[in-house]
Amino acid sequence: MSGSAFDSAIYRGLFTHPDLARLFTDSAEIRAMLLVEGALAQVQGRLGLIPETAAAAIHRAAMEASIDPAALTAETGRNGVPIPALVAAFRAEIGAPEHAQFLHWGATSQDIVDTALMLRMRRALEIMETDCRRLLKGLAALARDHAETPMAARTYGQYAAPSTFGAVAAGWGAPLLRHLDRLAELRPRVLCVSLSGAAGTGSAFGPDAPAIRAGLAEALGLSDSGASWHAARDRIVELGGWMAAAAGLTAKMGRDMERLCQSGIGGLRLGAGGGSSTMPQKQNPVGPSVLMALAPYAAAQAQVLTAALSPAEQRDGGAWFAEWLSFSPLVLAAGRALALAAELSEIAEPVPEALAAALDDPLGLIDAEAWSFALAERMPRQEAQGAVKDLCREAQATGANLSDLVARDHPGVALSPANRFGQAPADARAFAEAVDALPAGR
Amino acid sequence: MSGSAFDSAIYRGLFTHPDLARLFTDSAEIRAMLLVEGALAQVQGRLGLIPETAAAAIHRAAMEASIDPAALTAETGRNGVPIPALVAAFRAEIGAPEHAQFLHWGATSQDIVDTALMLRMRRALEIMETDCRRLLKGLAALARDHAETPMAARTYGQYAAPSTFGAVAAGWGAPLLRHLDRLAELRPRVLCVSLSGAAGTGSAFGPDAPAIRAGLAEALGLSDSGASWHAARDRIVELGGWMAAAAGLTAKMGRDMERLCQSGIGGLRLGAGGGSSTMPQKQNPVGPSVLMALAPYAAAQAQVLTAALSPAEQRDGGAWFAEWLSFSPLVLAAGRALALAAELSEIAEPVPEALAAALDDPLGLIDAEAWSFALAERMPRQEAQGAVKDLCREAQATGANLSDLVARDHPGVALSPANRFGQAPADARAFAEAVDALPAGR
Amino acid sequence: MSGSAFDSAIYRGLFTHPDLARLFTDSAEIRAMLLVEGALAQVQGRLGLIPETAAAAIHRAAMEASIDPAALTAETGRNGVPIPALVAAFRAEIGAPEHAQFLHWGATSQDIVDTALMLRMRRALEIMETDCRRLLKGLAALARDHAETPMAARTYGQYAAPSTFGAVAAGWGAPLLRHLDRLAELRPRVLCVSLSGAAGTGSAFGPDAPAIRAGLAEALGLSDSGASWHAARDRIVELGGWMAAAAGLTAKMGRDMERLCQSGIGGLRLGAGGGSSTMPQKQNPVGPSVLMALAPYAAAQAQVLTAALSPAEQRDGGAWFAEWLSFSPLVLAAGRALALAAELSEIAEPVPEALAAALDDPLGLIDAEAWSFALAERMPRQEAQGAVKDLCREAQATGANLSDLVARDHPGVALSPANRFGQAPADARAFAEAVDALPAGR
Amino acid sequence: MSGSAFDSAIYRGLFTHPDLARLFTDSAEIRAMLLVEGALAQVQGRLGLIPETAAAAIHRAAMEASIDPAALTAETGRNGVPIPALVAAFRAEIGAPEHAQFLHWGATSQDIVDTALMLRMRRALEIMETDCRRLLKGLAALARDHAETPMAARTYGQYAAPSTFGAVAAGWGAPLLRHLDRLAELRPRVLCVSLSGAAGTGSAFGPDAPAIRAGLAEALGLSDSGASWHAARDRIVELGGWMAAAAGLTAKMGRDMERLCQSGIGGLRLGAGGGSSTMPQKQNPVGPSVLMALAPYAAAQAQVLTAALSPAEQRDGGAWFAEWLSFSPLVLAAGRALALAAELSEIAEPVPEALAAALDDPLGLIDAEAWSFALAERMPRQEAQGAVKDLCREAQATGANLSDLVARDHPGVALSPANRFGQAPADARAFAEAVDALPAGR
Repeated sequence: MSGSAFDSAIYRGLFTHPDLARLFTDSAEIRAMLLVEGALAQVQGRLGLIPETAAAAIHRAAMEASIDPAALTAETGRNGVPIPALVAAFRAEIGAPEHAQFLHWGATSQDIVDTALMLRMRRALEIMETDCRRLLKGLAALARDHAETPMAARTYGQYAAPSTFGAVAAGWGAPLLRHLDRLAELRPRVLCVSLSGAAGTGSAFGPDAPAIRAGLAEALGLSDSGASWHAARDRIVELGGWMAAAAGLTAKMGRDMERLCQSGIGGLRLGAGGGSSTMPQKQNPVGPSVLMALAPYAAAQAQVLTAALSPAEQRDGGAWFAEWLSFSPLVLAAGRALALAAELSEIAEPVPEALAAALDDPLGLIDAEAWSFALAERMPRQEAQGAVKDLCREAQATGANLSDLVARDHPGVALSPANRFGQAPADARAFAEAVDALPAGR
Repeated sequence: MSGSAFDSAIYRGLFTHPDLARLFTDSAEIRAMLLVEGALAQVQGRLGLIPETAAAAIHRAAMEASIDPAALTAETGRNGVPIPALVAAFRAEIGAPEHAQFLHWGATSQDIVDTALMLRMRRALEIMETDCRRLLKGLAALARDHAETPMAARTYGQYAAPSTFGAVAAGWGAPLLRHLDRLAELRPRVLCVSLSGAAGTGSAFGPDAPAIRAGLAEALGLSDSGASWHAARDRIVELGGWMAAAAGLTAKMGRDMERLCQSGIGGLRLGAGGGSSTMPQKQNPVGPSVLMALAPYAAAQAQVLTAALSPAEQRDGGAWFAEWLSFSPLVLAAGRALALAAELSEIAEPVPEALAAALDDPLGLIDAEAWSFALAERMPRQEAQGAVKDLCREAQATGANLSDLVARDHPGVALSPANRFGQAPADARAFAEAVDALPAGR
Repeated sequence: MSGSAFDSAIYRGLFTHPDLARLFTDSAEIRAMLLVEGALAQVQGRLGLIPETAAAAIHRAAMEASIDPAALTAETGRNGVPIPALVAAFRAEIGAPEHAQFLHWGATSQDIVDTALMLRMRRALEIMETDCRRLLKGLAALARDHAETPMAARTYGQYAAPSTFGAVAAGWGAPLLRHLDRLAELRPRVLCVSLSGAAGTGSAFGPDAPAIRAGLAEALGLSDSGASWHAARDRIVELGGWMAAAAGLTAKMGRDMERLCQSGIGGLRLGAGGGSSTMPQKQNPVGPSVLMALAPYAAAQAQVLTAALSPAEQRDGGAWFAEWLSFSPLVLAAGRALALAAELSEIAEPVPEALAAALDDPLGLIDAEAWSFALAERMPRQEAQGAVKDLCREAQATGANLSDLVARDHPGVALSPANRFGQAPADARAFAEAVDALPAGR
Repeated sequence: MSGSAFDSAIYRGLFTHPDLARLFTDSAEIRAMLLVEGALAQVQGRLGLIPETAAAAIHRAAMEASIDPAALTAETGRNGVPIPALVAAFRAEIGAPEHAQFLHWGATSQDIVDTALMLRMRRALEIMETDCRRLLKGLAALARDHAETPMAARTYGQYAAPSTFGAVAAGWGAPLLRHLDRLAELRPRVLCVSLSGAAGTGSAFGPDAPAIRAGLAEALGLSDSGASWHAARDRIVELGGWMAAAAGLTAKMGRDMERLCQSGIGGLRLGAGGGSSTMPQKQNPVGPSVLMALAPYAAAQAQVLTAALSPAEQRDGGAWFAEWLSFSPLVLAAGRALALAAELSEIAEPVPEALAAALDDPLGLIDAEAWSFALAERMPRQEAQGAVKDLCREAQATGANLSDLVARDHPGVALSPANRFGQAPADARAFAEAVDALPAGR
């Protein structure tokens, strides 16, 4: 089937991150849920709450069992949750009823589903972090190599003042450094087990409920959630926000790349890709376009999560189902965005001559600001600005170059590279160094 | 794979409309695109623009060809669009190069992709209309059967004044009647071919471009779009808005059903479904919860379409790809919502005693408004309101019934059914009649 | 205060439509609510349900009364709705209690608030339609005047094939013609009174409830809603969708204008505006940027309305309040977008030389598609495409012009204007004629 | 004017936080922008970049100046930014041109606007933190006082199993504790100056650009941003996400309160407020409804910010203007939500008898889960579940109480409070202690 582009054989080359897609298959979900059931039994066995032999049998079976997703369809459709069907199928697979009876002991569906999601998200965040770091490396190389490659900064699409390509690339990357900080902060808060039973009180676990939860967390390498989070979904929203913003930040790079690639601008080349079915000459910037598509898509899915932040009471099917619809697509979208952005950062080649053309504009107007500050060393600033404004008008009217006009009226005033490029080269290099200095990830 | 719940074997019983899902598979998409290519060749043959034998060969092959979606993955990933790969694969399948060369003659990828989408949407809207009409019939039956089944209208969750269950059910349905009107209006405007070539000018079709487009529209049973809509996406947004609102309207019913089903309220029964893995007594209102989940999900996908309403220039990969990501999931969500709502309308059974309980409140406060208007026939209205307010306070303080207090202070004043239920029964019956009177759909 | 940019003295020159802003002031809202109360009394007097003298007194007072919005603050904060405070203040103003007691007879707050909103929306839609028609006229003039002004169509920002500026301008306008159709369809469905009392049953109006509602509709020039729409908000969502899409369609024009205005492209001039505080040479395309900002803002507000489409039960404070927060800002955003777009359509001046430059590209690659179809008249199409692809590569490698290379290898093959521009001039003129042929609006 | 409910005299009692509203007036914005200009001059004076006397004059004037917002309307409308007009007006006010010329030295509009926003956000976050802590205190009191007040946990609106009101209140508060952690993390990252000039390179500041920026940060009590963030808007998005989630978390409480307040449930009282214009008996839960309205509204505004996360190039009017439209309304919405939630936490009074009624259900089904675990101490779990399921059916069929049936079939099996309430009392108390242990805020 392919109700979604991520699941489509036609489109998966465009939109799908293979490693992440593998984490969000039915079988990976079942595997994760079984792992949680297995670890739960193991912990309960260790604490003496269920027989150790049963625990061992369940734990072992959980790693070996193979349950057909299609076997869960009908009952999940009736119940709204896959766990009753999964538990029944798993029990059948275990065989020994004297052991199998201790499966899912005291837990509720949401405990298993949410914990299994977190297990997969731990891995998904690792993948995303890896791609984010690869992207940062790609950008750091661009920033360092082109720290002094001149180009025109643009505001509202207009030439504003000189900058360098390296500074622009650093500008794409700087927020991603902060985004790694955010990731480090959210991990321990967010990646946690859920284990609080049907009413969120853990009553069916008996007085050892907190110990079981702590043990499960340890066994699975997740945090202990403390109290129930069946209806406290801030963690899901925090994850969603991080992923949507990650996609958005790559779309910023994508948008700038697409604009630099425009015919008539030509400041960037992206290598092959994007032929047209009828236009032999076309090389479309497909990758940047994909980034620009993934970002609003990811943002919309995150919005669904935010809307589900106020579920009713102690469990709310509507809010929870809304998460199911939007969460995995969000992971896939954000993950693809980071990986694709990393690729683009590695194949992007600025075209220095084309970039420089803006600064060599025959009228020289892009240096107007720089001239007005250079002149302001000799005269009051307003007067300097007024003088430059007048000379700009004269340049536009006569076709003369602004620097010639300044030289005529204000001999001896000159522009230094620092006047023109300011902190751009230094900012580019500082970014590259910050990337180099990143501590190793997980 | 199952990056989306709609494609998941585990969850499809909950979220997926089988007929619509079948329309949004890779193979259905390929079939639709081939149909468009076949019809295009046929029209061009008829107009003498390509050889009739080639046209016939292409047209025939288009109905028989079977192309493996996986064969398109790699090139689609590179090109951003599936058509170059599809055309190549189809050409290979046709075999005869003297015919195959006239395939896709003058068209651009977007012509084929968009027209193929519209072909499937024509069918999808038929399915949705059928479900919508089934839902209306279910609601009409409830409205008629319970036109006089008393219940308390609630505002802000509080008992407001007496109404009837039939009027409430009619209230769920009335906007859907208007939504069928909207559907009828949008169909001819929206369901149209796209055929304007790479630049939207149809230049590769030669002077017959408008005739080819008109012919294609006729052959496929779609409207003629007039000028290019590669970058004029209002039709997509109109479709998206209709579908998102359809889902939202069913969620209104879902929310009310969930609230009526609440333990302690118990005004509605929905039959079986929704057992809990640990709570033997639980019958969860799974269906209404699914409706409440599909609506925000659908709205978010429609939002992506709205954001893609301002693509750049004559074709914009980013905006178009964003449509691809969100459009089919929106169709699947809205379609499932309508079908599930129809099912729920058929199995919903109001519980008259439970509904009436609110009106039999020992204090009788729900009739306060009715009493104040009854009293206002004898005294100035403000005075009447004041008197009733005082009696309400007395009832709350003493536990006396408001009607007894009114009888004590204002003997002879009485409430008629009309006083209590107003237009509720008539509104319920009028809705049922309007549904009966619906002209047959397509 | 200025919690919103629309209300800010600083920003209103940028974002605010003065006529629409006037409709969405506190005093205009109070005036509209009083008009509804006055018309209701008048109708009830005419039907003999309240004394004619009281009706006349209320009706007259409703037109003359002046109620200080600040007098409603405290009680509205407590009650959640402004009507109790308004009715009290209005009663005090009327003075004569024997008349004033018949004010607001049988109505509930939502009847008044919603009907008053519809009254203002009737006027707001007139204003928006006027601006939309003005925008269409501006675009029609551009389309006609520049039907044959050559420019490069761009896909993914790349030169795709030749088109004309007139066709591009027509492309901005064509969806707006459909949007006027939508407006005509929605008006009678949406612009209606609300009059169904506290429980939506109209019980407090007695058996004449439908007649009163019909009378009120007639008196106010609105449609009769039929049954209660306190909790059936599809009309609000339809209005919201129309307005958000209107803003989105203007943003399409805005985006294209901004891109045409880019330094280094220079295909469009927008007159004065947008000086920089430090860059004397800058002329920013402020107007197009405002359009690009209003569209996502409007879409987000419409999204709030869609989320409020499933209110609970017969009235739901939460859903209704969410409408209050987002509806007027949406009107103001969409209205400003249409008016500003109209202005821009009138001051936009294409720069033919700059536009043509793309077509005069030394390599001549933009005509690749046209050449491949011209060649295909002599040889199989695939062969023609292959030949042109090879020549394109040669042109890129050697700097030769594609047309020279074609002439060398395929003497006698030539491009006609129709080959190059296709339907572009005809589409541009057809759009202009369609605008001329628009029936007069309301 | 009142294009927004926050600015409306009618509605401000419902929606507006007075202290936050005061921060988001035109005059507060002007004051903040002048403070930034004043601090900039002071720093530049101290570094010897402009004359110290000029610096002192500007700094002093910045604190005293009073500039009429309306004086900026026209030029802001033209330029798109308020700074040129503000600088001109401020210069005029300073009077001495020999000093005034050094105003805004080297800065660009966005430096001033963004830094002034951050100045106000520092204060706004303090206000929100104060309200959040007040809310936590209110919830802690509820949690502690009602740690053992029995109520039914509900899932899908159905009685699930016993819990306590204190645990439910703790469940509202626990995510807010995490939200304070997030706030502490984001403050130093987000609350920073902007000072990078027209092209983001700080070229007009000369080689001291970093020192000026650091000095400005210190003078204003904000962080040093490092490189330019004109087009790196992750900080804005992080702020927006925090605020939208804050509103969403209060809406969770609001939704639960509204449901507990339902007629027929009556588990919570909220004191006075919410009278109906026609229903004397109604006490609407207005406050909870406002929370449910603010959350989707806030989420939509945050969505606009996320969409603006990929601005084009070095400054992008469209993306920035979109922030202007949505940011202050988001602050006002989130701030009101926190303050109103705090009020509600202080006036909320659970109704123990009504809450307990669910647990005293004649059939005793809510204890089914507890019984099945109690029985499982004697027999295999599946057998125990099966036995309880059978007894539940018998109870429903015969009207007998489940505990009597268990006693009949399994004498000696008993439920302890721990069986029934599990960790609920402990969770409630642990939350209250965590609130008590909060370190003092800023």
